[in-house]
Amino acid sequence: MLKLFHSPGSCSLASHIALEEAGASYEAVRVDLQHNQQRQPDYLAINPKGRVPALVTERGVITETPAILAWIAQSYPRAGLAPLDDPFAFAQAQAFNSYLCATVHVAHAHKLRGRRWADDPAAIAEMTRKVPETMAACFRLIEDELLQGPYVLGDRFSVCDGYLFTIADWLEGDRVDPRQFPKVHAHRERVRARPAVRKVLA
Amino acid sequence: MLKLFHSPGSCSLASHIALEEAGASYEAVRVDLQHNQQRQPDYLAINPKGRVPALVTERGVITETPAILAWIAQSYPRAGLAPLDDPFAFAQAQAFNSYLCATVHVAHAHKLRGRRWADDPAAIAEMTRKVPETMAACFRLIEDELLQGPYVLGDRFSVCDGYLFTIADWLEGDRVDPRQFPKVHAHRERVRARPAVRKVLA
Repeated sequence: MLKLFHSPGSCSLASHIALEEAGASYEAVRVDLQHNQQRQPDYLAINPKGRVPALVTERGVITETPAILAWIAQSYPRAGLAPLDDPFAFAQAQAFNSYLCATVHVAHAHKLRGRRWADDPAAIAEMTRKVPETMAACFRLIEDELLQGPYVLGDRFSVCDGYLFTIADWLEGDRVDPRQFPKVHAHRERVRARPAVRKVLA
Repeated sequence: MLKLFHSPGSCSLASHIALEEAGASYEAVRVDLQHNQQRQPDYLAINPKGRVPALVTERGVITETPAILAWIAQSYPRAGLAPLDDPFAFAQAQAFNSYLCATVHVAHAHKLRGRRWADDPAAIAEMTRKVPETMAACFRLIEDELLQGPYVLGDRFSVCDGYLFTIADWLEGDRVDPRQFPKVHAHRERVRARPAVRKVLA
């Protein structure tokens, strides 16, 4: 059975939602980031990056949210979680997930994880200060250019939607008013109401 | 015909190499980052993110290196640039590309693009200072855990290899001695010697 190493409140929620939407059989294993469990030898043996998520499959471990999401979509094709038969449409899904991973999540990480990129406490504080501005700029682009509506790729729910939901749910904590972005805001509540998402959040 | 908007020395080289390795017909259009051409209205109409690369296809524009690389592999399957028929192996390729995009490229970007995440010049200087350390840590993981050898995924060249080559070629500029990483170093020279890569670099 699949095993998802995750942590509540982290980006691993996107993979968790995708597994549930796919109807997969999986075990969710909580990694305690507050006690640095992700840096302990037993977890590093699973994921040497020391991060969540990590998905253990019968073939081996998959890391990185965009890779996990595409794998779930490809492994459970009947769930229709990505446009698998259309390389251009699949590329749009991948581009969206890549933007969330490499730009939006990175912007957010400068709030609490600034020590990844600086040691000086003043520099880390300065990064934290700018997060509301960078996150708002990211969501302005998502609102105006990327989110087709009602779902990210248009009419059909995909793995992109659980990922956007996950990161959009960080906005208030990043001191960004989500009501500036009415399409994103409506999308977030639309995704939150889905049975699979409610089950994962419960 | 495909049109790749790129800039020499940027991560767009990975997509450029992949197009050449695929045997695609494409036009390479240079975007002058030093004169901020990527922020001008005519380029923003192509890619509202104001970044390179952007690949214009007959269906529309694709952005984000991991998405472009997977699209090239899927669109030119005879070139064998990714393990398309094996979702787990494809996920390993995607996880590698995602790590380069969201962690390694981001680490590098703190050298010259710190203003994305801070305004204070002292904080930006502090980010620049730490880049050799963060880039070395990334390449330690690639050397020890990710690069299977002789190519990233093993015996066969893939889109991952042009991407790793692109970013590994930044090491000296980031004040990291690539000889600390003999597998990466040998890989870089192996990829540099390929006819398609030599053509793109010329």
